[in-house]
Amino acid sequence: MLSEPVLPTVGDGSGIEPDRRIYPEELQLALRNKALPLEGLHYDVTPTGLHYTLIHYDIPAVDVTTWHLEVGGQVHTKLSLTLEELQQRLVQTLRVTLECAGDGRALLHPRPLSQPWLTGAVGTAEWSGTPLRLLLEEAGIGEGVSEILFTGLDRGIEGGVEQDYQRSLPLSVALHDDVLLAWAMNGAPLEPQHGSPVRVIVPGWYGMAHIKWLRAITALLTPFAGYQQAVAYRYSQSREQPGKPVTLMRVRALLIPPGIPDFLTRVRVVQHGSVELRGRAWSGRATITHVEVSCDGGSTWALAEIGEPQGAYSWQSWWYLWDASPPGTYELCCRAHDSAGNVQPLEQHWTARGMGNNAVQRVRVLVM
Amino acid sequence: MLSEPVLPTVGDGSGIEPDRRIYPEELQLALRNKALPLEGLHYDVTPTGLHYTLIHYDIPAVDVTTWHLEVGGQVHTKLSLTLEELQQRLVQTLRVTLECAGDGRALLHPRPLSQPWLTGAVGTAEWSGTPLRLLLEEAGIGEGVSEILFTGLDRGIEGGVEQDYQRSLPLSVALHDDVLLAWAMNGAPLEPQHGSPVRVIVPGWYGMAHIKWLRAITALLTPFAGYQQAVAYRYSQSREQPGKPVTLMRVRALLIPPGIPDFLTRVRVVQHGSVELRGRAWSGRATITHVEVSCDGGSTWALAEIGEPQGAYSWQSWWYLWDASPPGTYELCCRAHDSAGNVQPLEQHWTARGMGNNAVQRVRVLVM
Repeated sequence: MLSEPVLPTVGDGSGIEPDRRIYPEELQLALRNKALPLEGLHYDVTPTGLHYTLIHYDIPAVDVTTWHLEVGGQVHTKLSLTLEELQQRLVQTLRVTLECAGDGRALLHPRPLSQPWLTGAVGTAEWSGTPLRLLLEEAGIGEGVSEILFTGLDRGIEGGVEQDYQRSLPLSVALHDDVLLAWAMNGAPLEPQHGSPVRVIVPGWYGMAHIKWLRAITALLTPFAGYQQAVAYRYSQSREQPGKPVTLMRVRALLIPPGIPDFLTRVRVVQHGSVELRGRAWSGRATITHVEVSCDGGSTWALAEIGEPQGAYSWQSWWYLWDASPPGTYELCCRAHDSAGNVQPLEQHWTARGMGNNAVQRVRVLVM
Repeated sequence: MLSEPVLPTVGDGSGIEPDRRIYPEELQLALRNKALPLEGLHYDVTPTGLHYTLIHYDIPAVDVTTWHLEVGGQVHTKLSLTLEELQQRLVQTLRVTLECAGDGRALLHPRPLSQPWLTGAVGTAEWSGTPLRLLLEEAGIGEGVSEILFTGLDRGIEGGVEQDYQRSLPLSVALHDDVLLAWAMNGAPLEPQHGSPVRVIVPGWYGMAHIKWLRAITALLTPFAGYQQAVAYRYSQSREQPGKPVTLMRVRALLIPPGIPDFLTRVRVVQHGSVELRGRAWSGRATITHVEVSCDGGSTWALAEIGEPQGAYSWQSWWYLWDASPPGTYELCCRAHDSAGNVQPLEQHWTARGMGNNAVQRVRVLVM
């Protein structure tokens, strides 16, 4: 024994860091949680091992042969299902773009301390599973139920609170036809880091709602007030204010950095001439109407071409032909608009927990 | 255009950083390159999406239908093979543990600037492919050939040098029966980030030798002196000295952090009582003879149990029953010994490029 057991803190304890340099504790998180390298935007469907992951605690090693899903709380008939029993029900497959609500957090200044995402906490996969609605109808929702709570097998300490990872959905959202209990990703059983054997898929919502390693579904009469619901995933200007809940993904476009990279700085080098810029755009709130590209850091903008939609919940491809000349340093940007009138901001939307930062991407390019 | 095109630098330009805080450029690399979360040591064979990746430049999107492997240089018959043609030859499958030579770099003080690995740039997979030796014999090695050069499709700038990723092996190593041209990992085609469609597997060597996105194999009369061979992967005390080449993996053990984590600091919390510690150990240079565990930061050591070897090139499991009491703060360590007499050091082996740092792992645990 070295000393009394006391949890350490990072920084000055405020959870907000003014210096742009990163703490070793944040680096630990960056090495555990995986971004999509932006050239991975090339694929309509993200290869499984390239899809982003954000894992709050440890990845549970779940024995599929003994795993059960419990459906309880205010229901008429409690259910306890094996994986095989769950899979005997109707199967639905959806192509869904998933982004972490904290994507872009480490670009904020000052920086909220948590997983230090830059850009790329996103991916698109084909998820297959049983519609949640069928299971809820089978169990029979009790009178007065307002929310459905999901509990994962992952357990840890966060904000001083020891907890299972838990979040709820309003009943009306949980009953949507396209909310899935998914056991397959891109045609194969879920890998451990994606929630094996079963995770929730809530198309359009940020990643925190897609509970992994699901063990229980509970019908509640009153709103769930656990840490991940009432404290962590909130839009607010201080960590003390309750703020508003994080829900649907904000509109966003990302581009594949053109040319070749410098290893250490990731600055791009492009030969002057015609360069095709390509990327993806998505919104959890509406459909993408147009994407604009700027080659001068956001001073002037031009319209990109947009590909065909690939389902209601998938990102869309876009491309733009850039005349990269004369030689010099350029800053490329892109921004998407959706049919609800949302557009990405040029400047950061700062929030105390670094949620929903969809400010336009900036890519520095040296044209030679 | 914002300015003349000039590649930026990081830090003071020395490539060595005394401060423990991390530059944003290093964070970019940490979010691209993926460590094995240490609870992933649970699996004998690492699930594909959990296996570490280190990618110098961008992941090429290779069209398998037009890809060819060229075998040339000082050979009697040049070859040009499609993937299908390569796959028609003898297939061999090997379970191989692969570690990045830079694993542990960001634990060094002062810190060499590059990919800032902590621990866990490692994984074990089942690789299937054609023995390289067969192809070299088919082509017929010319007289006086001393090395075989491998060229990948990945291209970028490093140390100011624009380059394809290239490295060579001495002819005697390249002719070893177990060097593979692998097109499958864990029974499936390679995912893009693991080198699709074909990568080299050189069992026992650090990861830099296992060239991904292979496009050419070239027989050379003289030693290859490219950047990745003569500059980057070297053991030296300054970046100006040539030093010695990095080759086989050094002996190492890692343990799965017990208990549950605190989200931000990853400090572990364990209930007092009996706790089974588990982990893996490997060496590219010999077989593992024993693994020791310390629960007091390396002052006293006890022998762990070791599992059966799983092939000549795979890590081995080990376990140790720890009496975690009384409550307090503990520092767990483990260290492996191999049959060549190598043992992990308690203190860092500092080198200017942060290669081969196999100092013992330290895991802080709060026993409650």
